[in-house]
Amino acid sequence: MKRLLIATGGGDCPGLNAVIRAIVHRASQEDDWEVLGSIQAFNGILREPTEIVVLDNKMVSGIHFQGGTIIETTNKGGPFSWPVKEKDGSWTAVDRSDEMIRKLKYMNIDAVINIGGDGSQEISQKLYEKGLNIIGVPKTIDNDLSSTDTTFGFQTAVQIATESVDKLVTTAASHNRVFMLEVMGRNAGWIALNAAVAGGAEVCLIPEFPYDIYKVKEALEKRFHHGRGFAVVVVSEGAYIQGGHMIYQENKEVGYKNKRLGGIAAQLIKELQEIGFQHDMRETVLGHLQRGGVPIAYDRVLSAQFGVRAFEMVLNQNFGKMVAYRHPNFVAVPLKEAIATPNLVTSDNSLVKTAKGLGISLGI
Amino acid sequence: MKRLLIATGGGDCPGLNAVIRAIVHRASQEDDWEVLGSIQAFNGILREPTEIVVLDNKMVSGIHFQGGTIIETTNKGGPFSWPVKEKDGSWTAVDRSDEMIRKLKYMNIDAVINIGGDGSQEISQKLYEKGLNIIGVPKTIDNDLSSTDTTFGFQTAVQIATESVDKLVTTAASHNRVFMLEVMGRNAGWIALNAAVAGGAEVCLIPEFPYDIYKVKEALEKRFHHGRGFAVVVVSEGAYIQGGHMIYQENKEVGYKNKRLGGIAAQLIKELQEIGFQHDMRETVLGHLQRGGVPIAYDRVLSAQFGVRAFEMVLNQNFGKMVAYRHPNFVAVPLKEAIATPNLVTSDNSLVKTAKGLGISLGI
Amino acid sequence: MKRLLIATGGGDCPGLNAVIRAIVHRASQEDDWEVLGSIQAFNGILREPTEIVVLDNKMVSGIHFQGGTIIETTNKGGPFSWPVKEKDGSWTAVDRSDEMIRKLKYMNIDAVINIGGDGSQEISQKLYEKGLNIIGVPKTIDNDLSSTDTTFGFQTAVQIATESVDKLVTTAASHNRVFMLEVMGRNAGWIALNAAVAGGAEVCLIPEFPYDIYKVKEALEKRFHHGRGFAVVVVSEGAYIQGGHMIYQENKEVGYKNKRLGGIAAQLIKELQEIGFQHDMRETVLGHLQRGGVPIAYDRVLSAQFGVRAFEMVLNQNFGKMVAYRHPNFVAVPLKEAIATPNLVTSDNSLVKTAKGLGISLGI
Amino acid sequence: MKRLLIATGGGDCPGLNAVIRAIVHRASQEDDWEVLGSIQAFNGILREPTEIVVLDNKMVSGIHFQGGTIIETTNKGGPFSWPVKEKDGSWTAVDRSDEMIRKLKYMNIDAVINIGGDGSQEISQKLYEKGLNIIGVPKTIDNDLSSTDTTFGFQTAVQIATESVDKLVTTAASHNRVFMLEVMGRNAGWIALNAAVAGGAEVCLIPEFPYDIYKVKEALEKRFHHGRGFAVVVVSEGAYIQGGHMIYQENKEVGYKNKRLGGIAAQLIKELQEIGFQHDMRETVLGHLQRGGVPIAYDRVLSAQFGVRAFEMVLNQNFGKMVAYRHPNFVAVPLKEAIATPNLVTSDNSLVKTAKGLGISLGI
Repeated sequence: MKRLLIATGGGDCPGLNAVIRAIVHRASQEDDWEVLGSIQAFNGILREPTEIVVLDNKMVSGIHFQGGTIIETTNKGGPFSWPVKEKDGSWTAVDRSDEMIRKLKYMNIDAVINIGGDGSQEISQKLYEKGLNIIGVPKTIDNDLSSTDTTFGFQTAVQIATESVDKLVTTAASHNRVFMLEVMGRNAGWIALNAAVAGGAEVCLIPEFPYDIYKVKEALEKRFHHGRGFAVVVVSEGAYIQGGHMIYQENKEVGYKNKRLGGIAAQLIKELQEIGFQHDMRETVLGHLQRGGVPIAYDRVLSAQFGVRAFEMVLNQNFGKMVAYRHPNFVAVPLKEAIATPNLVTSDNSLVKTAKGLGISLGI
Repeated sequence: MKRLLIATGGGDCPGLNAVIRAIVHRASQEDDWEVLGSIQAFNGILREPTEIVVLDNKMVSGIHFQGGTIIETTNKGGPFSWPVKEKDGSWTAVDRSDEMIRKLKYMNIDAVINIGGDGSQEISQKLYEKGLNIIGVPKTIDNDLSSTDTTFGFQTAVQIATESVDKLVTTAASHNRVFMLEVMGRNAGWIALNAAVAGGAEVCLIPEFPYDIYKVKEALEKRFHHGRGFAVVVVSEGAYIQGGHMIYQENKEVGYKNKRLGGIAAQLIKELQEIGFQHDMRETVLGHLQRGGVPIAYDRVLSAQFGVRAFEMVLNQNFGKMVAYRHPNFVAVPLKEAIATPNLVTSDNSLVKTAKGLGISLGI
Repeated sequence: MKRLLIATGGGDCPGLNAVIRAIVHRASQEDDWEVLGSIQAFNGILREPTEIVVLDNKMVSGIHFQGGTIIETTNKGGPFSWPVKEKDGSWTAVDRSDEMIRKLKYMNIDAVINIGGDGSQEISQKLYEKGLNIIGVPKTIDNDLSSTDTTFGFQTAVQIATESVDKLVTTAASHNRVFMLEVMGRNAGWIALNAAVAGGAEVCLIPEFPYDIYKVKEALEKRFHHGRGFAVVVVSEGAYIQGGHMIYQENKEVGYKNKRLGGIAAQLIKELQEIGFQHDMRETVLGHLQRGGVPIAYDRVLSAQFGVRAFEMVLNQNFGKMVAYRHPNFVAVPLKEAIATPNLVTSDNSLVKTAKGLGISLGI
Repeated sequence: MKRLLIATGGGDCPGLNAVIRAIVHRASQEDDWEVLGSIQAFNGILREPTEIVVLDNKMVSGIHFQGGTIIETTNKGGPFSWPVKEKDGSWTAVDRSDEMIRKLKYMNIDAVINIGGDGSQEISQKLYEKGLNIIGVPKTIDNDLSSTDTTFGFQTAVQIATESVDKLVTTAASHNRVFMLEVMGRNAGWIALNAAVAGGAEVCLIPEFPYDIYKVKEALEKRFHHGRGFAVVVVSEGAYIQGGHMIYQENKEVGYKNKRLGGIAAQLIKELQEIGFQHDMRETVLGHLQRGGVPIAYDRVLSAQFGVRAFEMVLNQNFGKMVAYRHPNFVAVPLKEAIATPNLVTSDNSLVKTAKGLGISLGI
């Protein structure tokens, strides 16, 4: 009997459960494979007692249309930065990776599939270099990886953001207001750009293109005549004014790498008021509503494809790789390359041209 | 030819357009009625030049599944508090009600249907006392009127809030977090209470029951064992701690009565941290997402019922009344009574008992 | 320790699981109650070996937003008509009710909650007369019970039917077609009538008002000018032409009472073609799509209310009754009365007047 | 002033309006272009009087989230097969293409964008060969064109089909039934295959792989133990049994090329009953519900991309071409090539492998 361990790390993402289900279903077609899940990324292995669940077909029944991950996830801890409390009450990060690899051997784990973002895949690469049979499945709701055409969860986030634009349009029009919709996207503006095009927003501000506040004002003024008019602005959480910088709080807790962004929608209202924009403005921050809930069919299919491929890479002992989608194929990319280059919005991107073609101002 | 004028006032509400469409369709069955809409409540009449649109069957085609109001709405101005700029730059509120009634006569308006909340219906009553043939249609997304069993828009808001709970549950469970979902409800907790019961939240805090923060902490602690667990708290924007008060900003601008609430979700997190609750907590503020978008079928039916009844009250010259639903009938209630008593959550309400029966803590 | 048994019978209905969850949550607040579920109505008790599951808080976690019933349901068998195969291969219905009551005693079942339609509640009444401590919870997606203001599942069915009208309107308009949407409703036209009003259909045909096909033709002709135009007709499965009769197949299998309707949409197209209506017509039969899926918030709240009340009736030993909603209260109605009078659409109903007020033809 | 004419032909498809809006918005950025729409494909030009509408930014406001096409569509008539009634009452198809091209010249139409399926693009090619400045935009809800990675409307159809699977799963499980869900797909099984993978169906039958009914039975039997169990089968309308043929009705009316499929779900039930499959089976035919309604964000974005590119091809006088998506670029493909090769499901396709990997039977 061979054993596969699955872990999910980083922020949750619609489609994670569909990946897990696909791996388990595919593995069940082989006579000699058993699948386990480590609770809260690798922390389930590192803790004493360990927190591990058996994942069989019954356990994963119906989970493909559930958001989140049944084996939980976390941004804290992990094999290379386990938090340990010092005598003086402070916290230090400790490397427990060798211990973890030993533990996995004792548990007869033959292979590991690590589903996670760039932070998680850096860990995958380091564990692979230490000899672990590991395979990565990319997870980024922001779609900011250049090694794969797209990633699951992204289209669900775009769909939720677009439905929010749809909702705000009618209330904006009824009240002659400008709505600022803040969506996810720390470094990459894909969610904002897609939602702006799909929803028919008037302005879209993204991290890649720091905005000229006067250009934003100008675009909005055009929408009002004699006090009547309205507009919706879609803004990535990581967007910022030219000459300014992203608004974020670094979270200093040991082993916790998350930096929280947000607040740009409110900031934008202030900036516009300061330069004399007079219309009624309101902000809406989508936040975690973009992560949760039922993945759309597109993402469930993509997740199933990733999951089945990942298990087949295990069968082929194609370790140290990440599964990636390169239309119309699914390929195995070395982990090292996979996370090297981010996929950011560039000015010559077809969607940028389309946004401009629709008359959407990018504030530049 | 007789003329009916429709106005929509206060915050927008899913179903407003369905009411307008129903009035127009019903009126088109009479040979001698024409329907007009005043843009932005009564301001469309008060402005020079007036802002009025003709509402015929073509104009209202397909609007019943659109959020908002095609004749727009506002919280500013109105016949009894029209803002006038003084020489020193300050603003004064002026009574232009007599002038407006004269204007309506010049325009051969035979009757007015005013769709709006308690503020709007107070105006209706005062205009009625001054001799205007006016009928009210209640509009409150909070469902806080005791003169009618229910009002349109409320169930759509509950549906949106419930879908948000559904989304947060999966992300909360995946991250072992507590989510605070802030929903509408200044004085009445109906949206929060319904969404908490429908979504299966663990805690529900409403304005009617100021909460004991230690009780909230206790209810949440129960959900965690050895660091694992999660919870969703649904909190009305008007909720507040025992001994505290609602968090709001009075908007002092002349002719603008809106007070903005909000921020209680973030406040609650602080309060819990202060008394030593250690788990990861996040807030989500639904805001205007609850107002916009496609009304659910329930609200569209209710809106159609209100609209048809309101026009028939015009035909019967049953003025100075508001249409109200008293299951299974629709009745005409004198405007004066209609807005007298709010419908607040009481401790003996069946839904409160059900919430408790499900194990939902009300923080009391 | 006391034991409660839950059974669900008849066609599945959105909200069944929310009722089960509410009963279980409420029961868990008492120290001395255990809840069991009988698989496939009472057949789980009648079979050897019995098919029974323990229903605790963990078992019902998250089921309130799932359609269907986790304890399954059936239209076949039951204590009063258990199918037994004769030597000649034919089937006979056998009364096993006394045996079942004895079995429940051996199993220390103190009370039974039977969630089901009129067929199921007739069984409840007969079992009550034989001494069983039984309580009924009404389940009818058609909302055709006069003893309760409304029942769970109905608004979800209306919502799904309305969303279907919304979808058909755009395709009908694009193709200049007439769409016949066949929705549930054997004897009662509530789903059709609500969906027609909410969706803005042009014609609505229901079982209570056998239609004049020439009136239907006339209403549809009005929608076309020079070959352009479109219309949506919402038709209950039980609707039929004046002088005609319902289209249905009696299912003669022993112990299986279901009669299948359907086909009226296709029939209507034929009838219209026969009298010379020339426009392109298509039918869509919603079928089981109306039963499945996530219940809307309204139905989840209603289900929770029914469930908590039902368990409290058990606590109060208020047996032989059915829980009913009479706005704003939940009351206990003797089972005998509860199922006596159906709730059918009458010509003086407010919704019928509203439909007419909107210009919807009822084909009469 | 230059003039562009838009026509939409064939079955309607979610995203058509978003393409129209994108063309109009992009054209409005040029000083010298006016956009017109021909009602019901080219029939609006061919009729006397012509049926043409001016398409400006106001006219297309908000149409991107509406299904259907505001300039209507049809399968009848067209420049090469205009139906003319003979003296004996029969119909003949007449070629009016030269006349139409002359008419377009008189109307000062400088370019035409024809949005439609393979039938429509064959017409485009023939008109191009006759000298018309024409550009094609592909429209096929079945995603069966190999010249473009994907087409708009397809993902919306997949989403609707998947949501239907989700709904049927709960009712199937509650009733221990097998549901046959018939979805669109005459020659290509993409919708069925995607919905089966996304929804977690047990069996998926598509036109490319005629099924072995014994294999279908075998796959379904596995899902039942002692009478308990359930399954969902997703079947393309064009699927058929090995040795059999597609079920369809040829529509013989002149100028009307549509052949109607459908009925395979009911047929499948009969076939299974004939070979002794005993479980309760029901069919659901999605039909036009897949075409209508709000396009998902993915399709709206794709539509916007197609629309903007198509207009830019007009600007660049890149006629006789069809816009196509080849990730990550949008390219211009000669019309002749564009419609040459269909995109069918092949046994080595990655999604087929994934379906098998999940344990979905393809009946082969």
